[in-house]
Amino acid sequence: VSDSNRRWLVRRRPEGWPEVDDFELVEAPIEAPGEGQVLLRNLYLSVDPYMRGRLRDRDSYAPPVGIGDVMVGSAVAEVVESRAAGLAAGDVVESPTFGWQEYAAVDAAGLRRVDPELAPVSTALGVLGMPGLTAYFGMLDVCELRPGTTAVVSGAAGAVGSTAGQIARIHGCRAVGVAGSDEKVDWLTGELGFDAAINYKTAGSLTRALAAVCPVGIDAYFDNVGGPITDAAIRLLALRGRVAICGQISIYNATEAQTGPRLLWELVARRARIEGFLIFDYRDRYREGLEKLGGWVRSGELRYRETVVDGIERTPEAFISMMRGGNIGKMLVKVG
Amino acid sequence: VSDSNRRWLVRRRPEGWPEVDDFELVEAPIEAPGEGQVLLRNLYLSVDPYMRGRLRDRDSYAPPVGIGDVMVGSAVAEVVESRAAGLAAGDVVESPTFGWQEYAAVDAAGLRRVDPELAPVSTALGVLGMPGLTAYFGMLDVCELRPGTTAVVSGAAGAVGSTAGQIARIHGCRAVGVAGSDEKVDWLTGELGFDAAINYKTAGSLTRALAAVCPVGIDAYFDNVGGPITDAAIRLLALRGRVAICGQISIYNATEAQTGPRLLWELVARRARIEGFLIFDYRDRYREGLEKLGGWVRSGELRYRETVVDGIERTPEAFISMMRGGNIGKMLVKVG
Repeated sequence: VSDSNRRWLVRRRPEGWPEVDDFELVEAPIEAPGEGQVLLRNLYLSVDPYMRGRLRDRDSYAPPVGIGDVMVGSAVAEVVESRAAGLAAGDVVESPTFGWQEYAAVDAAGLRRVDPELAPVSTALGVLGMPGLTAYFGMLDVCELRPGTTAVVSGAAGAVGSTAGQIARIHGCRAVGVAGSDEKVDWLTGELGFDAAINYKTAGSLTRALAAVCPVGIDAYFDNVGGPITDAAIRLLALRGRVAICGQISIYNATEAQTGPRLLWELVARRARIEGFLIFDYRDRYREGLEKLGGWVRSGELRYRETVVDGIERTPEAFISMMRGGNIGKMLVKVG
Repeated sequence: VSDSNRRWLVRRRPEGWPEVDDFELVEAPIEAPGEGQVLLRNLYLSVDPYMRGRLRDRDSYAPPVGIGDVMVGSAVAEVVESRAAGLAAGDVVESPTFGWQEYAAVDAAGLRRVDPELAPVSTALGVLGMPGLTAYFGMLDVCELRPGTTAVVSGAAGAVGSTAGQIARIHGCRAVGVAGSDEKVDWLTGELGFDAAINYKTAGSLTRALAAVCPVGIDAYFDNVGGPITDAAIRLLALRGRVAICGQISIYNATEAQTGPRLLWELVARRARIEGFLIFDYRDRYREGLEKLGGWVRSGELRYRETVVDGIERTPEAFISMMRGGNIGKMLVKVG
């Protein structure tokens, strides 16, 4: 155990694309855990698209991070010292509120135990964590997947999208992915078993490209991206098509209000639906979701990949790279 | 009974706003009813926004009207001669497929009997017809109205909108209308009992104007109009807000693709939903809807107004006027 805690503070709110200099790496003393708390040492940090929203000076479903505060983020961590019943030194946990730092003394109540025997502990931030659960409930509950239908996923090579598309495949749907490189497309249609995938950067007309691989329309569209990909998907919705808005990463870093075609009239004749969702609303069913996801991972039906950046000093770089599509699968920072 | 049937044919497909010259008034012989048919004489013709879509050379939920065909439209008509069981000369019926003409020989099977004792027969094209049913199912089923919440209606002074807003009021909601003249606003907040209404043509910032009359956000938005009014409503959606897309009249006559702000990310934090619907999907429940609407009309809780244009020769003019907002309540052509 080191005697100093390196932590990333928010130095200023990004204008447009975040920069490394929007954050500041400082050293602080390691806090001692209080009664009911544990001292955790970070093993893996998660960087996720939602963090861009937390950097804005605007309340959303969660308050913004304050200037000078430790940047928010979840982590998989090891218990160094425990003053809480049921947790002992050496246990591994997932903490949704850990932040971009090496150590944290946190309440044991908010932690989820991670069993290193079941899967690599890093998966608790990906396929067996919030991204996997987001894909699970977004696909099954919001998109109401039905066997034999066509499901399209944008951001399909990311942590959420790669899981969402495979869940569609596992449920007997035609799974179609949209991603930003040929390497990603090859991974989706190869190892992950998507029925089709398109590279939006080279596809030309997205509507034509999607139509070619969705010949009877799109029944379910899981959207991580927004923008022109989503315009194309909406135009191709089938009767009673369902769109789950998980994220809109294509507009998060825009400095001017983004415009696009007015397409709501497309919903009328198709009796189609667009719905936003947040994973927290499903917290009473996380256990169900994790059991299902864990079963599919163990059986080999559900595969995952991780893009791991080494060292807490590279966390902002990893975050920015993820926002630019530099990851395949879950983007992580290896800290420990 | 005249011996000639005046009828409006589609001469050409409108580019942008329809013109009277897009239609052609011709005389034709009156057809004789076949077995199982009745000969009907038109009393009132309906002109409705959906007709603009039928003039397009594009299949939607119904095929387009052909060039040279009688323009589509529903009518309330009187039976002149019956060759069908259960209908006799003098009976009044509503026919959804009558068309813009004075006489038609039609299958009795597609007709709905109208009881002149219950309400003026013209209401079978308005508050006690498709527009009323559209408001009923759109508000109760798609918007899932709940007492004590805020419901906003665009196109609020039209046949559908004026009924939708009153249904919200009847169900204990705060009813807010958006319309295009001070006279309409006065009617909504006066006779119809809306809690508030705004004139979108003079309101300035629609988001600010709507926010001022929806201080805790919008729980249900019934949309007939689209465009900037809908942008404002989406920005003001409350948690789990619901948007029913009934029509988008603001874009039907545009000659160029319309653009607007990208707002789907607004749905995420609010877990809000936008859904298109068509009244035909509720046909098994029309009886329920008409009984409810009829009860409210008889009790005086649900009021209506009609803007009646006299003479079949003025039908295109009435249609175009309705598209430009020239009506208060249901726009009708009195034929008989």
